Formats: sequence, structure tokens, C-alpha cells
Amino acid sequence: MKIGVIGLGLIGGSFALSAKKSIRDCSLFGMDNNPEHLSQAFELGIINQSLTPLNYSRMDVIILAIPVNAVLEIILTLLDQINDNALLIDVGSTKEMICEKVKLHSKRSQFLATHPIAGTEFSGPSAANKNLFKGKAQILCEVNKTRPDLLEWAVQWFKNMEMKLQEMDPIEHDQHIAYVSHISHISSFMLGKTVMEKEKDEKAIFDMAGSGFASTVRLAKSSPSMWAPIFIQNKKNILDVLTEYISNLEEFKKLIQANDYKSIYEKIEQTNAIKGILEGIK
Amino acid sequence: MKIGVIGLGLIGGSFALSAKKSIRDCSLFGMDNNPEHLSQAFELGIINQSLTPLNYSRMDVIILAIPVNAVLEIILTLLDQINDNALLIDVGSTKEMICEKVKLHSKRSQFLATHPIAGTEFSGPSAANKNLFKGKAQILCEVNKTRPDLLEWAVQWFKNMEMKLQEMDPIEHDQHIAYVSHISHISSFMLGKTVMEKEKDEKAIFDMAGSGFASTVRLAKSSPSMWAPIFIQNKKNILDVLTEYISNLEEFKKLIQANDYKSIYEKIEQTNAIKGILEGIK
Repeated sequence: MKIGVIGLGLIGGSFALSAKKSIRDCSLFGMDNNPEHLSQAFELGIINQSLTPLNYSRMDVIILAIPVNAVLEIILTLLDQINDNALLIDVGSTKEMICEKVKLHSKRSQFLATHPIAGTEFSGPSAANKNLFKGKAQILCEVNKTRPDLLEWAVQWFKNMEMKLQEMDPIEHDQHIAYVSHISHISSFMLGKTVMEKEKDEKAIFDMAGSGFASTVRLAKSSPSMWAPIFIQNKKNILDVLTEYISNLEEFKKLIQANDYKSIYEKIEQTNAIKGILEGIK
Repeated sequence: MKIGVIGLGLIGGSFALSAKKSIRDCSLFGMDNNPEHLSQAFELGIINQSLTPLNYSRMDVIILAIPVNAVLEIILTLLDQINDNALLIDVGSTKEMICEKVKLHSKRSQFLATHPIAGTEFSGPSAANKNLFKGKAQILCEVNKTRPDLLEWAVQWFKNMEMKLQEMDPIEHDQHIAYVSHISHISSFMLGKTVMEKEKDEKAIFDMAGSGFASTVRLAKSSPSMWAPIFIQNKKNILDVLTEYISNLEEFKKLIQANDYKSIYEKIEQTNAIKGILEGIK
């Protein structure tokens, strides 16, 4: 079985390694815009051969693991070029625009829109890990639009990878994911920026920052090529939750200005309910 | 040697356990407003006897590990009551108001203001850990105002605990710590609040939230009795950095509204410099 991976970063690389582990007799073909990542992927044994537009049509499955703006640019051409029994899987962090883009393509039924909820703040092939997806959620969108035989194969593969499958409408997906992922990244990017601006003395950060700081700014290490297009593609939902976040911060600021101990206490106490929710995530 | 601990939560409990481990022949006396915490501290072997105002004067050392508003309320009376060779150590997260409060007390030289940069999002005696402070920073303020023999004992104890000692002016301490700790907590509390408000469907959080979400809202589990007074006592510095944080979020929001890919990319890329800083913290 020939599996092509477009984008050999953390996610694409991890899918390639997972495929090697969970699919018998598979050859991994890969491509990446960044020549260094491509050669690293060979060195690390993530792929065996180069994927090029010339051999797209030889693939049985192609995983599209590139920034979501690039997905929109390439996806129709890719569908044009795959063979009539191949499956194209996208794994991007937004789903509405991607599903919209392919909806009228004659090979729509050979496409499966997914979002594996897995990742770290690291990027590139060296961050890839064959167990990255184990136990993680895999969101599948518009499964009824994918050819049953191809869908069945994909579902079986994700199950072999021990992923927890969940079907979801692409519009709902983009809304939920703005709340539980995209806003966390913005919060973290801007917190990192603010602290670096205010605290000119890096040594003070080294000496005084505890694990709490490291935890809240961890995501600020994430890749701009991945995240900038996500924020634009999921603009409506992100602006909605970001506006609410800013308004909550403004309100909290007013309570501090007013020395309103009681209300600050109550707000923190209410927010402690997140404990139960975090327990549920584990 | 008799060591009294006032406040048997995460920090006080961990100091008690550290003392048992690192000081020969010591008896631990403890008190806590919460009767359940007091009995837990006995059960967990954190303390051996009750500390009460009646035996304050028998202590050689007293650790004050209670919310910073309560520190201000109790500290002068405590200094009045300790014996002439005892040392009183406070371990709160703000230093300016506490140092100001004691400055004219006749036993000022028997006081040492510290801030151990250690903690978790958990609280209470059950969260206490004898190794919590190992390898962690311990900020010491106004050391020249503490009696040399008492200071020397404390420094030796903290070194035995393998803490990394650092002297700092209380005003500078409060400014730096607003940047590298207090603002992270506000960011996290309000993020948790926002997501709980927007995402009415808790199951969606369980299913879709990844480790990034858990990491950014982890601190939102922190105790309101500890944090509400910190935000009020360090008001000036916190409002300063919080205003900057909100302004950075507003600016980022405008860039998303304007689909300004290039500027979003650049801002994220600049913020990635936090990688180097986080490496320094490890």
C-alpha cells in the first residue's frame, strides 16, 4: 500500500510513523516545501521515497498535513490528480472552509475531512512521534459524503491507532475548537509577548518564573505558519470568543482597581469549576 | 528545635515536611483556620503538635504561610509574641506591603521576608511535598534588616533544602513577580471563565480539548483565598501588565478582523522568542 504525506511536520510526520507501525506492507512517500525537513524525514526513517505531483496518482492514500491556507490552495488540484480508488485525508485545525472548498468536486467522495486533537508546541519532522495519536480524539466531518469503502478503511486505521473517533458537523467543529484550542493559543501568544515587552530583564524571568508561567506561555512556542492561517480561517468564531475573553479581563481589571475582594474571590471560585472539566479531559 | 507553621496548605505543609527532612531534632507545631486541614496535617505526619497563640513564644522559628492579607493582619501581633531569639519567616507572594508593615516594629530584626518560587495548582495539606522547594528559587528581601545570626541560620536551612537563593528589593520583587506569575494566573482564570461561559456543552470540552487547553487553564484551579489578596496587594504592578496584555489582545483582534496574515505571522514569530526564555527557566 502506498501512502503519501504532504507536509512532514509534527502532524504529517507522526501520521507517517503511525502508518508504518499500524499498516502492513506500506511504503511512505513524502513531500515538504522545506528541503531541510524533507531530508530530515528521510534520515529519521519517516518516509522511504519522495512524493511529487508526478506520482500522486500512484498513491492509495494521501494525508494532507500542511497549514490550512495551503490546504485550500492545493486541495482541488490534488483531488483532480489522485486515482479513482485513492483516499485524500486532510488533518487541519479548521473544517468549514475546507469542506466548503471541495463540496462540488467530482471526487468529493474520495475525500475525508478530519481533525486529530493531538499536538505539542514543537514542530518539524524531529517532533514527529509514532504514538502521538494514541488515545487522542479524531474528529471526522461529513462522513456521509465519503465513499463507504474508503471511509471504512480510514476508520479502521484510526481505530488501529487507538484514536477516539467522533463525528461532527464542520461548522460546529470550528466553533467548539475556537473555544477549546484556538483561544488558548492567542491567550498564550499575547501573554508571552506582553511579558517579554514588560520584563526587559530576561534574567529575572529565568530566576523568578515558576512552572505556572511556563505552563501558560508554552503554546507561545507554536509555529506561525500553522497558526496565522487558522486564526484567519476561523475568524468569526475566534473573534467571538476573543471579544468575550477581553471583556472578562476588563471586568476583572475593574474589580482589582476597585479593591473588590469579594467579587474577585467569587470569580476565581466559580472558575475553579474548571477542575472538574480538566479531570474529564484526562 | 521548635518550628511553628501558621497555615498548613501546600506551601506551609511543604515547609514543615522539608524541615522534618533537613533539620535535626525538630518538633513541628502547626495551626490552620480550617479544622479539617489541621487534622489532615496531623494524620499526614506534617505536624506533631498544635500551635496556638499560647505557645508562640516557645517557638525558635515560625513560618507564616497564609494568604497575604492575613499576613498583614497577624504579623505585628506575632512579632510582639515571639521570644527574643526566635525568627519569623513569611513566604507570601507579595513583599512590598509586608516589609512596609513591619519596618518600625522593635523586633524587625527577627523577621525575614521570603518568597519561594514553588507551587502547584493544588492546595491544602494533602498537596504538601517535602521536595517541593528542591532546586527552586527563594527570594530574600531586605536581608540587611534581619539579625545576622538568624539570617545565617535561615540561609543555611534553605541551602540544605537545595533552594537557589536570591536577594531582591521588595518593590522590585513585586514588579517582576507581577510579570512572571501574577498575570499568568489572571490570564488563566479569565480564560477558564470565558471557555466555560461560551462552551455550554461540557462534553465537547472533554472530547475536543487537547493538552494545550489543559496547560493554559491549569492555573485556573488555584485557590481564591490565596490569589484574591495577592491581586489587591500587588494592584499597581498587576494593573500595569494587565493593561498591556489587554492592549496586545485588542491589537491582535484587529489584525484578525483585517485578515492581516503578514502581521499576525510576524507577531507570532516574534513571540516564539519565548522558547529561549523557557529553556532558561528549566
